Amino acid sequence: MKITSYQVHDVRFPTAAAGDGSDAINRGDYSAAYVSLGTDAGLMGAGFTFTNGRGNEIACAAIEALAHHVVGRSLEEIVEEPVAFWRSLTADVQLRWLGPEKGVIHMATGALVNAVWDLRAKAEGKPMWQLLAEMPAAELVANVDFHHIIDAITPAEALALLEAGDDSYAERLAVLEKDGFPSYTTSVGWLGYPDEQVLTLTRQAYDEGWRAMKMKVGGPIEDDVRRARLIRSVIGDDALLMMDANQVWDVPEAIANMAQLAQFNPYWIEEPTHADDVLGHAAVARAVAPIRVATGEVAANRVIFKQLMQANAIGVCQVDACRVGGVNEVLATLLMAAKFGVPVCPHAGGVGLCEYVQHLAIFDYLRVGRSLDGRMVEYVDHLHEHFEDPITVSQGRYLLPRQPGYSATLKPSSIAEFSFPDGPVWRA
Amino acid sequence: MKITSYQVHDVRFPTAAAGDGSDAINRGDYSAAYVSLGTDAGLMGAGFTFTNGRGNEIACAAIEALAHHVVGRSLEEIVEEPVAFWRSLTADVQLRWLGPEKGVIHMATGALVNAVWDLRAKAEGKPMWQLLAEMPAAELVANVDFHHIIDAITPAEALALLEAGDDSYAERLAVLEKDGFPSYTTSVGWLGYPDEQVLTLTRQAYDEGWRAMKMKVGGPIEDDVRRARLIRSVIGDDALLMMDANQVWDVPEAIANMAQLAQFNPYWIEEPTHADDVLGHAAVARAVAPIRVATGEVAANRVIFKQLMQANAIGVCQVDACRVGGVNEVLATLLMAAKFGVPVCPHAGGVGLCEYVQHLAIFDYLRVGRSLDGRMVEYVDHLHEHFEDPITVSQGRYLLPRQPGYSATLKPSSIAEFSFPDGPVWRA
Repeated sequence: MKITSYQVHDVRFPTAAAGDGSDAINRGDYSAAYVSLGTDAGLMGAGFTFTNGRGNEIACAAIEALAHHVVGRSLEEIVEEPVAFWRSLTADVQLRWLGPEKGVIHMATGALVNAVWDLRAKAEGKPMWQLLAEMPAAELVANVDFHHIIDAITPAEALALLEAGDDSYAERLAVLEKDGFPSYTTSVGWLGYPDEQVLTLTRQAYDEGWRAMKMKVGGPIEDDVRRARLIRSVIGDDALLMMDANQVWDVPEAIANMAQLAQFNPYWIEEPTHADDVLGHAAVARAVAPIRVATGEVAANRVIFKQLMQANAIGVCQVDACRVGGVNEVLATLLMAAKFGVPVCPHAGGVGLCEYVQHLAIFDYLRVGRSLDGRMVEYVDHLHEHFEDPITVSQGRYLLPRQPGYSATLKPSSIAEFSFPDGPVWRA
Repeated sequence: MKITSYQVHDVRFPTAAAGDGSDAINRGDYSAAYVSLGTDAGLMGAGFTFTNGRGNEIACAAIEALAHHVVGRSLEEIVEEPVAFWRSLTADVQLRWLGPEKGVIHMATGALVNAVWDLRAKAEGKPMWQLLAEMPAAELVANVDFHHIIDAITPAEALALLEAGDDSYAERLAVLEKDGFPSYTTSVGWLGYPDEQVLTLTRQAYDEGWRAMKMKVGGPIEDDVRRARLIRSVIGDDALLMMDANQVWDVPEAIANMAQLAQFNPYWIEEPTHADDVLGHAAVARAVAPIRVATGEVAANRVIFKQLMQANAIGVCQVDACRVGGVNEVLATLLMAAKFGVPVCPHAGGVGLCEYVQHLAIFDYLRVGRSLDGRMVEYVDHLHEHFEDPITVSQGRYLLPRQPGYSATLKPSSIAEFSFPDGPVWRA
């Protein structure tokens, strides 16, 4: 099967006006720099990277700049030499300068790499989680670029780790078939929501069965304290409450503010400071223990994750499906997390991130991390209706996706309606 | 004076074919994503970010996406609240997601911020180094965004540091007026050059007075050893030989290879591993001492530099003028380097980087680092003829630039000839 064509779409949803997704630093129009790959077999592979609105056209331009490394190749050739393919994108002798392996150029890599994986799963007639979960250990290892992480994990260690997980696979699959994958909701406490709305949404989520919720912090500390008290008053002492500062604090500020918020027994503090600050996260982790430090949605690549783990800077790994260079780099991250004993709770929300990461978390449980202890996939109730194969959540748990592929395919009607700047929504 | 318009140019020079600038990971067509700012006073501010060819259009798109934060403002307003201006670019609630503060979006910030500084220097009729060097300490401090670096340096510490430098300013200026600023050449040892060319260029450079030279390493180690021996045979034991691996090695590989190259007494090893790997650089630094570890051309922002210094990972700080978010963030880096006692040897080469960084190094000597010990500006003899105010180098030293501005203005004829894809050079 040969990849013969590609199309890039700049798709944006006008979420900023309602305050959805608002936090200490973002107020976004959830967007996808979306790419579809055409083949000579009639199958279509879909992938995207998530952005926050303005600038989605830059991510689209980066996909255009990288697409020549994908179009013209056969799927067999990519499957045969997956790291060579991955490096053709990440180590282009001219484009690498724009990262390297970070920011726009790497997010665009993620979109294309994920589209190829979507194609691969569709070609095998399996949902992504199943394609990965049934793959021989050696083949999984062959899909990881160990360059620059070999001091943290070797191919041999990765192989041993994956082979160790084979024995009770069927039992773990049965757990997921029966109960689904645990999740938590972030929909209750966006900074842009007034107290009454937070109260209503928290009550509603609790009544729907959620026992783990995340609130945004990073406004004036009195407001954060008041909102935490409000949410705790509804969910009681036993439910998990997570806090997310979206990088707004300096390191000493994070430590001081968490001393005030500790009374509400947060399970984790997410992005307490700048995403690039490995040593800063480590300092915060030491200061706020036993509260865990979580980060990952803006961790650019496997080299950042490697250091976060080497420095004991995180107690929760929140890898994002398309911030890094797609499935191959997520694999690298899951393997390191398993080696270092850090639970993975992937970042989701935005548009399409829930659809992507459910597959990754399920695969991680089945083959890599092999535990549900402390594992939860983020859930946000936005924009699922635009996907051909949307997530299904029941009683606070993700049900196993069943359709072939990576669940990344947008409905043609949604692409048409929300295309920027010419779709009807944006022309209005 | 109000900024009333902007123009973006995608300017590319076809350097890849000749092997100029080739190293272990790059083979580039040196390019500038170039922006000019028009004003109601008739003055024009010029800035650019350097890229390696393909993808320069992405950097141009990012400048377009950010330009609305610049156009319409008055220069007075920017000078009055410089950090507020800087954050309007770096913390845009939608665009920040594309970095944050790294990669394409941050390089585009650098282009725009530098163009504003060029305008500011032209408005005062001073070369950039002089504008900065004569600025009151409090005003310099007011131009630095201390967010996320306050755990390494506070505004009060920065102020004290700058004020301490005031006393012997005139003496240091006299040194520069007389001798110029020390530099080293990278033009002798690109990986794409055959041995004979390396030999010829090394002899030529030595005869021209250069006593500090940099070679590229990161090919097969036997080749690196052979080329190092070749260069040492020409320059003798006393001249400085620097080595640059351009990130190609894994951490253990860097340590092993430097054990073989140590016999040639390298002064520093530059970019021994991935640019994001603070802990990796620290491990290499411990292993190769007293050889210094140098990095910076791909260090994305002040938060990365902060950690490189906190972790004792570098003995040389090679900040780049436009990889980070322009002059303001370079200021932050120079101040941290001075506090941590790390000499600054800015990254240059490419196109226009020598023109930019000479100003920064001169300012650093006059007001911040206040020493020439171990300080050298990189020199590469490419493409200076395209600038209105090119560098002048004599006997291995940069002479003080005299024209007002940041020396970033390209000749209109060069813009026309090398514009991509429609300039005559690219149509041919």
